[in-house]
Amino acid sequence: MANFGGHAIPGTFFLLYGFWLIVKHVLFHYWRTTQPKRRQNIPPFAKRMGYIEGGLQIFASFVGIMVEQFVVDGPHARLYNRENSSWVKLMNWQHCTMYLFFGITGIALVASTASRRVALGFDRLTLSLALFVEGFLFYYHVHNRPHLDAHIHTLLLVAVFGGSASIMLEVFLRDNIILELFGACLFILQGTWFYQIGFVLFPPSGPEWDLELHENIMFVTMCFCWHLAVALLLVACTSSVVWFTLEKFSKKGQDVEIGMRNTSSKANCQKALLEESDEE
Amino acid sequence: MANFGGHAIPGTFFLLYGFWLIVKHVLFHYWRTTQPKRRQNIPPFAKRMGYIEGGLQIFASFVGIMVEQFVVDGPHARLYNRENSSWVKLMNWQHCTMYLFFGITGIALVASTASRRVALGFDRLTLSLALFVEGFLFYYHVHNRPHLDAHIHTLLLVAVFGGSASIMLEVFLRDNIILELFGACLFILQGTWFYQIGFVLFPPSGPEWDLELHENIMFVTMCFCWHLAVALLLVACTSSVVWFTLEKFSKKGQDVEIGMRNTSSKANCQKALLEESDEE
Amino acid sequence: MANFGGHAIPGTFFLLYGFWLIVKHVLFHYWRTTQPKRRQNIPPFAKRMGYIEGGLQIFASFVGIMVEQFVVDGPHARLYNRENSSWVKLMNWQHCTMYLFFGITGIALVASTASRRVALGFDRLTLSLALFVEGFLFYYHVHNRPHLDAHIHTLLLVAVFGGSASIMLEVFLRDNIILELFGACLFILQGTWFYQIGFVLFPPSGPEWDLELHENIMFVTMCFCWHLAVALLLVACTSSVVWFTLEKFSKKGQDVEIGMRNTSSKANCQKALLEESDEE
Amino acid sequence: MANFGGHAIPGTFFLLYGFWLIVKHVLFHYWRTTQPKRRQNIPPFAKRMGYIEGGLQIFASFVGIMVEQFVVDGPHARLYNRENSSWVKLMNWQHCTMYLFFGITGIALVASTASRRVALGFDRLTLSLALFVEGFLFYYHVHNRPHLDAHIHTLLLVAVFGGSASIMLEVFLRDNIILELFGACLFILQGTWFYQIGFVLFPPSGPEWDLELHENIMFVTMCFCWHLAVALLLVACTSSVVWFTLEKFSKKGQDVEIGMRNTSSKANCQKALLEESDEE
Repeated sequence: MANFGGHAIPGTFFLLYGFWLIVKHVLFHYWRTTQPKRRQNIPPFAKRMGYIEGGLQIFASFVGIMVEQFVVDGPHARLYNRENSSWVKLMNWQHCTMYLFFGITGIALVASTASRRVALGFDRLTLSLALFVEGFLFYYHVHNRPHLDAHIHTLLLVAVFGGSASIMLEVFLRDNIILELFGACLFILQGTWFYQIGFVLFPPSGPEWDLELHENIMFVTMCFCWHLAVALLLVACTSSVVWFTLEKFSKKGQDVEIGMRNTSSKANCQKALLEESDEE
Repeated sequence: MANFGGHAIPGTFFLLYGFWLIVKHVLFHYWRTTQPKRRQNIPPFAKRMGYIEGGLQIFASFVGIMVEQFVVDGPHARLYNRENSSWVKLMNWQHCTMYLFFGITGIALVASTASRRVALGFDRLTLSLALFVEGFLFYYHVHNRPHLDAHIHTLLLVAVFGGSASIMLEVFLRDNIILELFGACLFILQGTWFYQIGFVLFPPSGPEWDLELHENIMFVTMCFCWHLAVALLLVACTSSVVWFTLEKFSKKGQDVEIGMRNTSSKANCQKALLEESDEE
Repeated sequence: MANFGGHAIPGTFFLLYGFWLIVKHVLFHYWRTTQPKRRQNIPPFAKRMGYIEGGLQIFASFVGIMVEQFVVDGPHARLYNRENSSWVKLMNWQHCTMYLFFGITGIALVASTASRRVALGFDRLTLSLALFVEGFLFYYHVHNRPHLDAHIHTLLLVAVFGGSASIMLEVFLRDNIILELFGACLFILQGTWFYQIGFVLFPPSGPEWDLELHENIMFVTMCFCWHLAVALLLVACTSSVVWFTLEKFSKKGQDVEIGMRNTSSKANCQKALLEESDEE
Repeated sequence: MANFGGHAIPGTFFLLYGFWLIVKHVLFHYWRTTQPKRRQNIPPFAKRMGYIEGGLQIFASFVGIMVEQFVVDGPHARLYNRENSSWVKLMNWQHCTMYLFFGITGIALVASTASRRVALGFDRLTLSLALFVEGFLFYYHVHNRPHLDAHIHTLLLVAVFGGSASIMLEVFLRDNIILELFGACLFILQGTWFYQIGFVLFPPSGPEWDLELHENIMFVTMCFCWHLAVALLLVACTSSVVWFTLEKFSKKGQDVEIGMRNTSSKANCQKALLEESDEE
């Protein structure tokens, strides 16, 4: 992973996942806001979305693990070399561990989509743990590196642990759109910051950066804040676009539905009352 | 900014903002407390207040950025000097970054005032982030300084990060007057502490402070607690004044309204009961 | 304060305050639990208790400040000595600052007892801040001391900051008896630990402790846990005694009241309904 | 305790306790989910379970304390040796302190099972404190050890303090199955990690580990994440098995009960409506 591509690939994945989270959460929020009170169930498309998202996560982490293990200079599933008594390619194993936890998140999402028995919030807990594990491994990863290298990875940890805490909160504060979009924002920040790390440590063009110069560290710190501002902007724009698209598309349907509802509202009312008495 | 004025200006802004927050929150709290139950909407003056506050924030941060960039020894919007391969005036750029985030807060406030589609609490989140970014940049700012200089800025961070955490809580615990006034208190603390920093590091009159003397550090630590006590006092006095002014002014209106309500209370009561039975 | 008495006095105060908190909170909890639903107001004795507690706090902290200032070797209200350009007795000033904040707590308690306009939880916020300030000043107090001295004060900080956090939580989670008793427990722990510090650093009898021996530090760490266990035991016993005393005493009253209530319950019911319609 | 067995025994206890917690919490969750609304009391078997669990905890910690004190090279209840002025076997005393707090948890559980007067959540608070004390003593335990030894114990602290925080949350967020299972998961993680420590520091077979090699530290960090993944898997499997067993066994009972309810549902419905109108 010690090249530009090795930082661009995870960056792209986190960016895409962040945008996906925005779309998903705005969609659910729109559904919650616009549905009449008695029908606040999960939207009909939720199941399919859960399966697709979870399936992709499982697939991506499986591919990630396979690639890390079986590239030319990978460990090929060997952990310990008895001949010279040393561990084999621990860096690749660490990356596999990170992928494993994102895979677990996928499994948890599929499970909680498939069955109502899986407790609400289980998928968020595993996502939070996946970010925690990522940050945890990175934390012990960055010792004994040049100053700028360590600093730029430490800033990444702010985004990673911030995301982990934010998504852990979602387990307890459900359906809070601000929290959900903030979590997505931190994923996007992580994504763009991976790119930034790639550009700083392995500049595809131009001169190398001086990894000990204090001014570079000051710039990188400030640059992290700019990334945060850009991430906020991206979240604001994307969620607005999604929201207005939903409003536009749902108008036709609503016009039809209102007509139907008016005629059937009395019947509905009676049905709801009947349902209630059954539930009790 | 390395002079007395450079600390007095932000201090004044934070002080004014803190007082403004007290006025605003006490006004809203008074409205919530005194309005009859069925009318707990946003007060009619809320919209205008939101636009004014947000607009001023945007304007002030725009002016701040312009000044930092285009003062005589500013960077004039140049970030990197290719000739001698060095960054241009990073300190000014860092201040611009801080202003930028307070500008974003203003935009968020205007947006959430203008449209109900913007989720509740978005303006608080951006304000919390603005404080976080301020503290974050300061944190990496104070290394390699004389002992007292570093210490006095570290104490500032207590107010800044405390404010950030307190206002982040407001995103989730809405309309909690204690929390809102505590946030305002931390803004005032920050404001007076900026003045204190100015007086200690750049005394306008009198002798210079010894920046390494342990006794000075002990005094400054204690002094920070006194500023906190003063800030609490200012919050208590200001909010009392605002509250009693509101009570006084609203009495006339209430006298009129009570008369109207008494005549219509029986009708109201019946209407309310009918509404309730409809809701169930 | 550098003697046994100087640690025994605050220790005694914190112990007494802890026990008082247990009595107060169990009393209120008993009231909340046993009152019929419609009457969950503040008990009639709450006002008097608030005034007494607040008044004692104000009085004690005033006396404390006076003593610290005007003892023979105190600063006599002089902060800076211009002749030899040095601060006067900063240690005494720091203690005064701590007392000041406990005095502010007393004022807040009296104010929130006197007027319903003071927001609920304001007294808890100031108590939490008083503990925070105490811990904050201690934290910068313990540098450059012998190893055991620094360690034993660091352990004190666990109780102080723990108490501050616990009581800050009470601002938001009101009437949670577990939280309230835990806060009292941490006050008692602080009290007994002040005594322990006195016994270790200024043993009234017996040999001096070796302040650098690692075994002593190990013992002191373990001893802190024993103090916690004792504090838990004291809270459990005291609250049980208070509870059973209340049950015993209120039985007679209840027997009388139940008789009265039965006769008047129908009337009550109608009154409650009338009150409700007035409120709306 | 400085041998393999000394780590395997606590590991086994934590593993068993973790599994017990899963069974208990899934059982209660099943009860809450399947009971009709009006009957959400504590299940009838809760009392017996509480007594058994608490009794076992008290018994186990009593045995633990006795063993630590009266093994051949134990302190035999002597704390201080006046002859050579030194503490006696502080390590054994520290372990006794840890056991003591788990014993207190048992007492708290028995007390809160026996009487409704004990506030809800008291047993969780003491369990959280027991974990805190364990982590607290370990934290000051690991100084001045070889690098890998300190690191592997630091990782244990992540599980211990994580568990303490998670169970402290349960005091306030009651009956949240996700939180309860996460607490159990951290107990299982602690159990398996104790085994891991035993295998690394006192390998029962094979060569000794190099306690200063950086690669070993990297491996151990990653290994902790694998333990977390395994703990998650164990929690998922165990809770599923418990849940499906409960569903299977309760079907017969339900079939009978549904028959009874159907005949009486109309009557129930009317009664519920009457009760509701009484409450209002």
